[in-house]
Amino acid sequence: MTRAQVQPPGTRTRTLCAVAWDEAARGVRLVDQTRLPAETVYVTCTTVEQVHDAIQRLVVRGAPAIGIAAAFGTVIGVQSSRARDFAEFASELARVTEYLATSRPTAVNLFGALERMKRAAHANRELPIPRLVERLLTEARAILNEDIEMCRQIGQHGAALLSDGDGVLTHCNAGSLATGGSGTALSVIYAAVEAGKRVAVYVGETRPLLQGSRLSAYELRHAGIDVTIICDAAAAQVMREGRVRAVITGADRIAANGDTANKIGTYALAVLAEAHEIPFYVAAPSTTFDLSLAGGAEIPIEQRDGGEITWLLGRQIAPADVNTYNPAFDVTPARYISAIVTDQGVLRPPLSEAIAEFIAPLHGHTLRSEPINEKRKVKA
Amino acid sequence: MTRAQVQPPGTRTRTLCAVAWDEAARGVRLVDQTRLPAETVYVTCTTVEQVHDAIQRLVVRGAPAIGIAAAFGTVIGVQSSRARDFAEFASELARVTEYLATSRPTAVNLFGALERMKRAAHANRELPIPRLVERLLTEARAILNEDIEMCRQIGQHGAALLSDGDGVLTHCNAGSLATGGSGTALSVIYAAVEAGKRVAVYVGETRPLLQGSRLSAYELRHAGIDVTIICDAAAAQVMREGRVRAVITGADRIAANGDTANKIGTYALAVLAEAHEIPFYVAAPSTTFDLSLAGGAEIPIEQRDGGEITWLLGRQIAPADVNTYNPAFDVTPARYISAIVTDQGVLRPPLSEAIAEFIAPLHGHTLRSEPINEKRKVKA
Repeated sequence: MTRAQVQPPGTRTRTLCAVAWDEAARGVRLVDQTRLPAETVYVTCTTVEQVHDAIQRLVVRGAPAIGIAAAFGTVIGVQSSRARDFAEFASELARVTEYLATSRPTAVNLFGALERMKRAAHANRELPIPRLVERLLTEARAILNEDIEMCRQIGQHGAALLSDGDGVLTHCNAGSLATGGSGTALSVIYAAVEAGKRVAVYVGETRPLLQGSRLSAYELRHAGIDVTIICDAAAAQVMREGRVRAVITGADRIAANGDTANKIGTYALAVLAEAHEIPFYVAAPSTTFDLSLAGGAEIPIEQRDGGEITWLLGRQIAPADVNTYNPAFDVTPARYISAIVTDQGVLRPPLSEAIAEFIAPLHGHTLRSEPINEKRKVKA
Repeated sequence: MTRAQVQPPGTRTRTLCAVAWDEAARGVRLVDQTRLPAETVYVTCTTVEQVHDAIQRLVVRGAPAIGIAAAFGTVIGVQSSRARDFAEFASELARVTEYLATSRPTAVNLFGALERMKRAAHANRELPIPRLVERLLTEARAILNEDIEMCRQIGQHGAALLSDGDGVLTHCNAGSLATGGSGTALSVIYAAVEAGKRVAVYVGETRPLLQGSRLSAYELRHAGIDVTIICDAAAAQVMREGRVRAVITGADRIAANGDTANKIGTYALAVLAEAHEIPFYVAAPSTTFDLSLAGGAEIPIEQRDGGEITWLLGRQIAPADVNTYNPAFDVTPARYISAIVTDQGVLRPPLSEAIAEFIAPLHGHTLRSEPINEKRKVKA
């Protein structure tokens, strides 16, 4: 075990900036996540083809971060436009967004961001082209800034769940590398540390793609947070030894009853947390709720290629002719979830009621201005 | 998911032979486990240095298999002896066994086998040297054959725990690659299949050293058994989907109360099995019980180098300067164990009583001749 330097709690954490606009280059600057953790390399994409390639090759990953990169990519695709009128510009814009949409065909945030860029263009069709391009850059920046704010709110609401001296277990990467801001689960940790709490983070390496050890460990270390990598199978032992007092993960999709789909291994942590009487928290923006789904049974589980298990870094690590079973996600039933930390506040059980009260109005486009009141917050 | 050919149940399984005597070469033949699963290469060691190197480099691994290899290594070390009397021979023998003992300094079976070889020599000191060497070969073969028989008995006793059509989850490698025979946990599976039951095996890959995917998947596939590799973190999801109806693992050490130390991740499977109402079985020879330990709290947990987590196949897969926590084993409290399958029969709860009744007499050198009676056997 090597012991790395960590910063004193209460100081500002330096979270990584996975995606940003580089005004000098008029391009989008990304941390190349395919080269982490061995090398920290920033790449600036100045052509729409480069942005497409970066999304496709997972240079940028995480649903919110992909959406933001695509929004900036749209600006890059039209900023040299020589269109003489809006009709010509709109047709160029459509080609750019259709092309970018092919980079990750199943990413909802990607399509959402591209749609929003097109709506912004059409809403400002009376502007001269150069000013319209700047308006689109403003829209892309707004998508980024809203994500940053959403992450910040999650951190602020969730920080109270962690106490000074706590060990916290997380899984996969629900951090600054997956979002425009400080992440979701990791935002809670960053906010707790900035609030002066000493927090020791344990992260499961998250096989098969190792987002825990490659990405979460990297960004927590970068931010000066005390982080320890464990094998996923060691989580129960870490709990039994009293090393962690809370588990916190992100979410890919949350049903109306609170059942939560997240990276494979999350469900195991929820069951193990209950057995060890440790609270299990989920952190996610209110956009992650899919209220068209009554419960987790309706969430489809993506099955991924077995080569992710049997090959690593281009080398075979298991027999070639053997069966594999590689679900990308699992569903944690709401009954295992102690609280869901959102940008609107902390939802506590009964989750179906809290979701109906505080999240459903947002999805009905009745935006709330005030945060969830104190009575619904969970105490750590 | 690739679907491999499996043999019909009820046919004889072809278990791998990890360690055997090659009479033609007068050497010990090993499956080179460092090259599995990419290549199946047998190596025959004909010098004591080669045997030492094979143990040290994990060409041969698993406590029983190491002991057997060392016993044959002792024969190899003295078979060209030109000693003129027993005193000279005994001094050569001592050099050989002392040298072999340095190959894996903490392996109890290794020391036990070497001690037994020395005792056999001294008990037959009146024999001419060439006949004494053959007597030592007989002793080494006895160590191998006893292990084969112990594995066979575990299989026979445990097979009744599995039902036709069962999915079974195992962890790490408690199979023919770790023993002289058909293994412990995997011996139960082999015996069930030979008894005509259809069994689908799920095996956790067993990070960090991947014994599940590299070794168990390999040997089960080799034996024609239906095997599917999963990431360790997917075990709970596999249970939840009803894919497995039993969990069975090996054991490194079992205390007098039944608390069981085994590869990291075993304890998590036991807790998850209970949560899913699936029986959790341990399979181990009666020599694995350490009755000097009242309970699991007294079992020391080996902490291994974090490089096992952060490096794989010579490549860095996590930040270099990050903390790791890498316990090699965990302890499963007896209350989670549905039964312990031994060569003497199946022990069922209360385990402390069953161990006192059936295992303690063996350790007190009061060997039992009859197997444990039916009333103590657990039904599957």
